[in-house]
Amino acid sequence: MMKEGGRVDVRTSSGAAYPVVVGPGVSRDVPGFAGEHAPGGGIALVSDSNVDPLHGRRVAQACREAGLEVAPAVFPAGEASKTREQWARLTDALLAAGLGRDACLVAVGGGVTTDLGGFVAATYLRGIPVIQVPTSYLAMIDASVGGKTGVDVDAGKNLVGAFHPPAAVVADTELLDTLPARERREGLVEAVKHGAILDRGHLETLHRRRVALLDADAGAASEIVLASVALKARVVSEDEREEGYRQILNFGHTIGHAIEAASAFALGHGSAVGLGMLAEAEIGEAMGVTESGTRDRLAEALDGLVAPPDSSVDLDRVLGFLGQDKKVRKGRPRYVLLRRLGEVAEGEGWTWDAPDDLVRPAVRRVLGVS
Amino acid sequence: MMKEGGRVDVRTSSGAAYPVVVGPGVSRDVPGFAGEHAPGGGIALVSDSNVDPLHGRRVAQACREAGLEVAPAVFPAGEASKTREQWARLTDALLAAGLGRDACLVAVGGGVTTDLGGFVAATYLRGIPVIQVPTSYLAMIDASVGGKTGVDVDAGKNLVGAFHPPAAVVADTELLDTLPARERREGLVEAVKHGAILDRGHLETLHRRRVALLDADAGAASEIVLASVALKARVVSEDEREEGYRQILNFGHTIGHAIEAASAFALGHGSAVGLGMLAEAEIGEAMGVTESGTRDRLAEALDGLVAPPDSSVDLDRVLGFLGQDKKVRKGRPRYVLLRRLGEVAEGEGWTWDAPDDLVRPAVRRVLGVS
Repeated sequence: MMKEGGRVDVRTSSGAAYPVVVGPGVSRDVPGFAGEHAPGGGIALVSDSNVDPLHGRRVAQACREAGLEVAPAVFPAGEASKTREQWARLTDALLAAGLGRDACLVAVGGGVTTDLGGFVAATYLRGIPVIQVPTSYLAMIDASVGGKTGVDVDAGKNLVGAFHPPAAVVADTELLDTLPARERREGLVEAVKHGAILDRGHLETLHRRRVALLDADAGAASEIVLASVALKARVVSEDEREEGYRQILNFGHTIGHAIEAASAFALGHGSAVGLGMLAEAEIGEAMGVTESGTRDRLAEALDGLVAPPDSSVDLDRVLGFLGQDKKVRKGRPRYVLLRRLGEVAEGEGWTWDAPDDLVRPAVRRVLGVS
Repeated sequence: MMKEGGRVDVRTSSGAAYPVVVGPGVSRDVPGFAGEHAPGGGIALVSDSNVDPLHGRRVAQACREAGLEVAPAVFPAGEASKTREQWARLTDALLAAGLGRDACLVAVGGGVTTDLGGFVAATYLRGIPVIQVPTSYLAMIDASVGGKTGVDVDAGKNLVGAFHPPAAVVADTELLDTLPARERREGLVEAVKHGAILDRGHLETLHRRRVALLDADAGAASEIVLASVALKARVVSEDEREEGYRQILNFGHTIGHAIEAASAFALGHGSAVGLGMLAEAEIGEAMGVTESGTRDRLAEALDGLVAPPDSSVDLDRVLGFLGQDKKVRKGRPRYVLLRRLGEVAEGEGWTWDAPDDLVRPAVRRVLGVS
């Protein structure tokens, strides 16, 4: 049963809820959801230049066959497209197609597409519904659930955006088949994070199903995506706007973002967050907050998922980016710390300050600098 | 009492409420509100090149004296600044100032400033609080209350934006003193609209206090702004996102927007909406929906507030823009119609279709075309 997928309902701050449907072949439900949220019969289908020929056009065709009018809006694949300029270009394409407030936007793709398409929907005529159709592990497990949308600017990633919960998320695990091996590996790190902060059993399932998951076996993928979404839903239903509890989803991300930036984004997001989790577990242990041995067990859970940083990722550069983190409070970076695997330690508002002389060696160790 | 101003609390869709404080001299409360919503102690002060020297700098100085760190962000005055480009420029100024999620934005100015500043706040780090300090009748009565923010694009006005309810609105009626006479007149038309749809007594007060209001007498202004805000608050508290009842605030706006666009925005927004209300009252009477004589009584209420369109505003051009209205449903423009002065007629979802052969003569008459 579980392996065939299922459905999770995520509550939003306004008291409404949206469904996340997970399973092999569920993208056949997209025309139904789109019709429900586009009373005017018009939809925008946003996709990137890689995913459009693989999946976007097929979904568009299915929507047309269901009687919907489809305006395709395709942008060049890659994180470099997650900009205000592409957002403006896509918005203008929707306006040129004459889509009104009674239209909806369907975003088919990875995290860049769900973030960018979501932000277009959030601001189009002050907001139209978005149906997220994630095609990567990262987007299924993390990006498409929770309502965060946005773009990057020169000053940093995701600094401009909006909270815009989707009308529905349709995660068809058969689409993972076209996902490059590197993206499969990187995306599964966020599933490890969900286990690390909320459910030790989830980590065990991940470990047991590792090979099938990296093969993009649709059954294994459905099981793990559904479980991960259910864990994330518990958190964002409680605190959609990251004013408190939702911050626990940033475990590994304070140091992870700094490593990612220090690598000039050559290192994948998953790898950077994986290394960040290891460093933050070590800091927690050194502070006496995290149960001893947690870092080593987390390293086992991440085995085979994380690429090592190359030697150009410099310790001082990482520490420099740490000071510019979005979560800085009174000039000091903040960390989510574990109590033990599967449980977060409640600090001051779910985050902790940490002594510099503990941060430095922990970062040095994950960078492999002696 | 009333004349000294007061306070209205506006409920938002999330169940929270924000205060609208109205009265002579209340801008002295801005540092208090700013401090409350900027736990990090940093604020952005957004203002245009006209209002900054008149009021922006004084408010900024008062905030500094209260211990806040102020990053001023000034843009060129005028509707031409209500663009995605200015939005991006202001956003980058806030990022360069290092403002975090614990900052807030204070917008001091007219409707362009509250709309543009509000949209910057709505999308900065996925949303920071905005304190609206309106300095025009239009912004006090209409723009700063209700949470609509946004910018114009080539395809039309306010087509890109977000719903972002303010943390507080501080309407200091002493600031109206610097408002040009034309803007006073234009802005009061929205107060007439509030009376026309909700409260006939409000129209009578407006008429009685006309001269004092055009003189920007702070006492008269406080009375009428407070009453107008209370009327609007009743509506937006019920339907923040304009899914139903809030549409009644569009009375006069379907035809008004078309006239405004047909004049290439040479005609003021207030005048255009005033003419739109007259035409829509005439249509309602012809349809037998609106009590006979309503148009004439509305014309009295608008006497002296509305500038006539010049002869270049062409009937066919206006009818052409009507078909492109945001509120078009199934290709037909929709109209809010009155039952009688002070009461809206409930149609299909608060708006009505109207026969073209009734729309045409009603528009012709307000354009003064024989």
